[in-house]
Amino acid sequence: MAEFTVKFDNIPASVIVEAGALISDAAKIAGINILQPCGGQGRCGRCAVRVLSGSVHFRSTLRLSDEDVANGYALACQTVIGGNVLIEVPQQEKIERRLVTDRTAIEVSVPSQYDPYNDQSIQKLLLTLAEPNLEDQTDDLNRLRIAIKQVTGLSKISIPLSAIIKIGRVLREGNWKTTVILDIHFNHEDNSEEAWLIDIFPGHPLDEMPILGLAIDIGTTTVTVWLVDLFSGKILSQASLYNQQISRGEDVISRIIYASKNGGTVELQDLVITTINDLIETVCSDKNDQSYKNENIYTPTIAGNSTMIHLLLGLSASTIRFSPYITTLNQVPMLRASQLGLSINPSAVVDCLPGVASYVGADISAGVYSSGMDHTDMLTLFLDVGTNGEIVLGSQEWLVTCACSAGPAFEGAGVASGMRATSGAIEEIWINTKTYEPTYRVIGGGKPRGLCGSGLINLLAELFMTGVIDKGGNINSHLDSPRIREGKHGLEYVVVWATESQNNQDIVLTRVDIDNLLRVKAAIYAGFSVSPDSVGVRLADTEQIFIGGSFGKYLNVEKAIQIGLLPDLSWDRFRFLGNTAVLGTYYALLDRNAHKHIQDIASRMTYIELSADNNFYEAFVSALFLPHTDLDRFPNIAQVLDIQKGDD
Amino acid sequence: MAEFTVKFDNIPASVIVEAGALISDAAKIAGINILQPCGGQGRCGRCAVRVLSGSVHFRSTLRLSDEDVANGYALACQTVIGGNVLIEVPQQEKIERRLVTDRTAIEVSVPSQYDPYNDQSIQKLLLTLAEPNLEDQTDDLNRLRIAIKQVTGLSKISIPLSAIIKIGRVLREGNWKTTVILDIHFNHEDNSEEAWLIDIFPGHPLDEMPILGLAIDIGTTTVTVWLVDLFSGKILSQASLYNQQISRGEDVISRIIYASKNGGTVELQDLVITTINDLIETVCSDKNDQSYKNENIYTPTIAGNSTMIHLLLGLSASTIRFSPYITTLNQVPMLRASQLGLSINPSAVVDCLPGVASYVGADISAGVYSSGMDHTDMLTLFLDVGTNGEIVLGSQEWLVTCACSAGPAFEGAGVASGMRATSGAIEEIWINTKTYEPTYRVIGGGKPRGLCGSGLINLLAELFMTGVIDKGGNINSHLDSPRIREGKHGLEYVVVWATESQNNQDIVLTRVDIDNLLRVKAAIYAGFSVSPDSVGVRLADTEQIFIGGSFGKYLNVEKAIQIGLLPDLSWDRFRFLGNTAVLGTYYALLDRNAHKHIQDIASRMTYIELSADNNFYEAFVSALFLPHTDLDRFPNIAQVLDIQKGDD
Repeated sequence: MAEFTVKFDNIPASVIVEAGALISDAAKIAGINILQPCGGQGRCGRCAVRVLSGSVHFRSTLRLSDEDVANGYALACQTVIGGNVLIEVPQQEKIERRLVTDRTAIEVSVPSQYDPYNDQSIQKLLLTLAEPNLEDQTDDLNRLRIAIKQVTGLSKISIPLSAIIKIGRVLREGNWKTTVILDIHFNHEDNSEEAWLIDIFPGHPLDEMPILGLAIDIGTTTVTVWLVDLFSGKILSQASLYNQQISRGEDVISRIIYASKNGGTVELQDLVITTINDLIETVCSDKNDQSYKNENIYTPTIAGNSTMIHLLLGLSASTIRFSPYITTLNQVPMLRASQLGLSINPSAVVDCLPGVASYVGADISAGVYSSGMDHTDMLTLFLDVGTNGEIVLGSQEWLVTCACSAGPAFEGAGVASGMRATSGAIEEIWINTKTYEPTYRVIGGGKPRGLCGSGLINLLAELFMTGVIDKGGNINSHLDSPRIREGKHGLEYVVVWATESQNNQDIVLTRVDIDNLLRVKAAIYAGFSVSPDSVGVRLADTEQIFIGGSFGKYLNVEKAIQIGLLPDLSWDRFRFLGNTAVLGTYYALLDRNAHKHIQDIASRMTYIELSADNNFYEAFVSALFLPHTDLDRFPNIAQVLDIQKGDD
Repeated sequence: MAEFTVKFDNIPASVIVEAGALISDAAKIAGINILQPCGGQGRCGRCAVRVLSGSVHFRSTLRLSDEDVANGYALACQTVIGGNVLIEVPQQEKIERRLVTDRTAIEVSVPSQYDPYNDQSIQKLLLTLAEPNLEDQTDDLNRLRIAIKQVTGLSKISIPLSAIIKIGRVLREGNWKTTVILDIHFNHEDNSEEAWLIDIFPGHPLDEMPILGLAIDIGTTTVTVWLVDLFSGKILSQASLYNQQISRGEDVISRIIYASKNGGTVELQDLVITTINDLIETVCSDKNDQSYKNENIYTPTIAGNSTMIHLLLGLSASTIRFSPYITTLNQVPMLRASQLGLSINPSAVVDCLPGVASYVGADISAGVYSSGMDHTDMLTLFLDVGTNGEIVLGSQEWLVTCACSAGPAFEGAGVASGMRATSGAIEEIWINTKTYEPTYRVIGGGKPRGLCGSGLINLLAELFMTGVIDKGGNINSHLDSPRIREGKHGLEYVVVWATESQNNQDIVLTRVDIDNLLRVKAAIYAGFSVSPDSVGVRLADTEQIFIGGSFGKYLNVEKAIQIGLLPDLSWDRFRFLGNTAVLGTYYALLDRNAHKHIQDIASRMTYIELSADNNFYEAFVSALFLPHTDLDRFPNIAQVLDIQKGDD
């Protein structure tokens, strides 16, 4: 039998393998650890390597794009060595990043037409004032106002006491030359432009004074902050942290309940402000020998769901919880950063983007803008599933939106072995069709501790597709597997035995868990069904489906369709947009027109209150099955199920 | 010789006196202490009593008004008993109050046309909002805005975060009935009306909720606060206290210097805020079993000189001190009470009245308004001498204003035995024309400790009119009196020997003191001279002279003319208006139109900067004599001096 030499670019020696060997076999011989979380079934795509030279034969390129294949990528577990080859093994991290990037994040680049002088609400003015004398005793404040008006044409200029206190010194220190930072905004109350003075400095400093802004997305689970140079538009650094409020409740409802307790509102406000301030410290700290001063951050633009915005402002949000689900506000009035305790320039005007309703917040207004769906003539469905699920349907013509109380099951809450998508969570899982034995991939490697959202979706899909559970979610007790057993709360499937788990406890999925998950996916799918109905279009006509939010980040479309969470449409219609909220916030931070546009989107979106909608309830009940009561809605899944039936 | 029976209403027995006896003689016999600080010369008017029945003959009614005489008042030292009489001796306090009232305060009554619904900037709205439902999910804030707009027509409504935080609870607690307190103001920046929401309450309370305001005058020496019921317009209570900043400097210049030291600005701000808060506590505390809540004070209207306003806001005011004497601001932007730490409703908008220049502040704008001089066709001169001297000349046609750095000499500072007008200060003094021995009246009775402003003016006039000093202020060493002696700093006059003084030290007036006082009076008189010149009218044409400020309170016109501090015009042209600043502030507090009017006055007044004016310097030098270099300007004094010459 022929033998081939296999050289890996990251070790000195090469190895010899027999013809017919897989790249993964060669790696094993070479002592190179290539992760294969799906057990070498070619289903997870995580063992991708690059063939730099030599001949190989693919068994499968599932999980690789055409572009990947063109660039020489191959799945180590599915590629047969056909000659002497040189293989590049991307570092595990690198693979992950590539895959993550492919599936979730769109490249964030400064908009090509960005013109800080026209687009920015933050303007730096270099003013030279006439020096006062005995014939012109105009007071300092008025002298400054007149000079600003001459340059900007604005007569409405709000100047905070903190700036007034230093005006006298600053003007004289700079010998009547001064640099002023203004925030110029459109006032929606009376359709006028007005300026807020943020800071004032003596003279016209020669060295470039950084003009910085923040794009902030306050998620129920994760808070993200981007530090942006407002002159170049470039993102200088990014950071994310868990929202420290998590310790006071996993989802918005439990937060609202906590807030309604004595002192709870203030405590939750403190926690989210602390989270943001921690992130600000991170994004401002040394990066390539460059650090930034908090005082040079002149505007924070903030998105978040309505509850998060309420808690940021210290509002109890209790009315969001009960019918008729009313917010205290969807549009936040002008506030200075010092009023909230944000550690940036204390006079910066806090710019909270507008929300639509109790369960469709500013994160969605911003997300819709960044997705571009309001600019396309293609019928587009926008789904943001984080701790909650929000759906927007439409195009440049119209936009309807609704929210389904997805609940935190996909965040791991309310599920026996559920956990958040953090170290120790099973995020991908495959079940052997014959033995029903699972293989899985754990975030951070090591022993598993539980199942996160994507792991749960995977598990549910695999259990269904392998026949462990039926379309009603019932576990098949007749299968010959020790993993199917009677637990405390009925039948359950053991994913990980206690001996193999981090905390020496079985990791299981119970019948109760399955019901919880079915309710969540049914609520979201019902949202998909009702939105098109409400405007007389068909879900199947949706030309593109945008998935945003933290949930979309690791979502496996195939699995999500298999359980009926996503509609059964051609995969190429799905686009994972990552954190659309922070992206939209970034655009609003850069460009006053984008900001106005987001305002328009918020007021244009027609909100459908699903809790009052009988059609929603019917759609929900129909969707409580795997993938759905009506298999005609899932033709591709039906086909696979048919084939499997044929196999049996 | 005939004898008459004299009965005093405050003692049981009566006394018998011979014909020709004075009431003061009878009082002495009866053991009744009637103060006669001028030594029974009939010059001070402080021994006034009331003749209830019986016949008397007046030697003099100088110091009594026709009305007083009609009401039976008589000077005990100048009234001869002509039959059996019944005499009422007013309590000393009562006399003082009556005299003080006569000479200084005008009766403060609510303007007759006052209509809180039209005039008040503070409006209480009783709103009934539509209850939200699933078809109308308008957020609370917007629902409230819409309701306010329906009633007021205003779309610009500034709502503070502190109110937003409670909106949700308040609206529901009141079952969608709510009571809102608005402050509706004219915005001078863009000529529009806008509303600031101050507070919001559930329901439409049945019991009357007091709507209160404060009129505050921040003087360099004294701070005055009036608590006003904004619905009736009535002054509920008044209180005054020394400005606690006094301990950090007697006059504005020394305060500015103190403020420029490290932490000084904040310290002075704290001191004046503390003073105001102490006064608020006083005016709100039990009065006739009625006390008021600080939270029900919805607006403070504030006047003060420019330095006082700067220090209130925490501005250093250092530029006020040096040429070209520029303020940081004359017009204070909108601030909430919480920003300054005033102990009233934290959302109340602090309304500082507008000033004109560094040395013509809001106290003058308000004072001019309350004097009514801008509404008369009579040429009017308005003088406000407190720690500084401000002069306004004009009528409804035009107004010019200037400030003379009077300095604190008349407040007792910079004078060897000077002190403020407080207990122990000599406030009136008479010198015997033959013996040069003084008699005097001490504030609070008891032994004297020093000389206050009015005492100094009296002393200077008496010394001049009795020939102890000449027109140049030189002390005549040839007079036969032990009180004229050579002191450490040249000749001096001993007012009180150490044995008779409170602190066992001689109370003296030195040549240096005289020069200081001459400079102050010359500065003020020069202001009188230059203001008419600058607009081509003659000082003698002035039809009325209004004297405001704490200084005017006890000012003796006769004495003030004798030293050339006031122009030698017929006494009936002089009117003492008391604290014109707080009165104008009260009117502004009541009436938006009065407020606008004060704004107009501030912008209409033409400010003359005297420090740059050669004519002022010349007028100043000419006025450095008693009463003046040019005796033609003081015809009445010249006549008296001629008579005295004839007597010699």
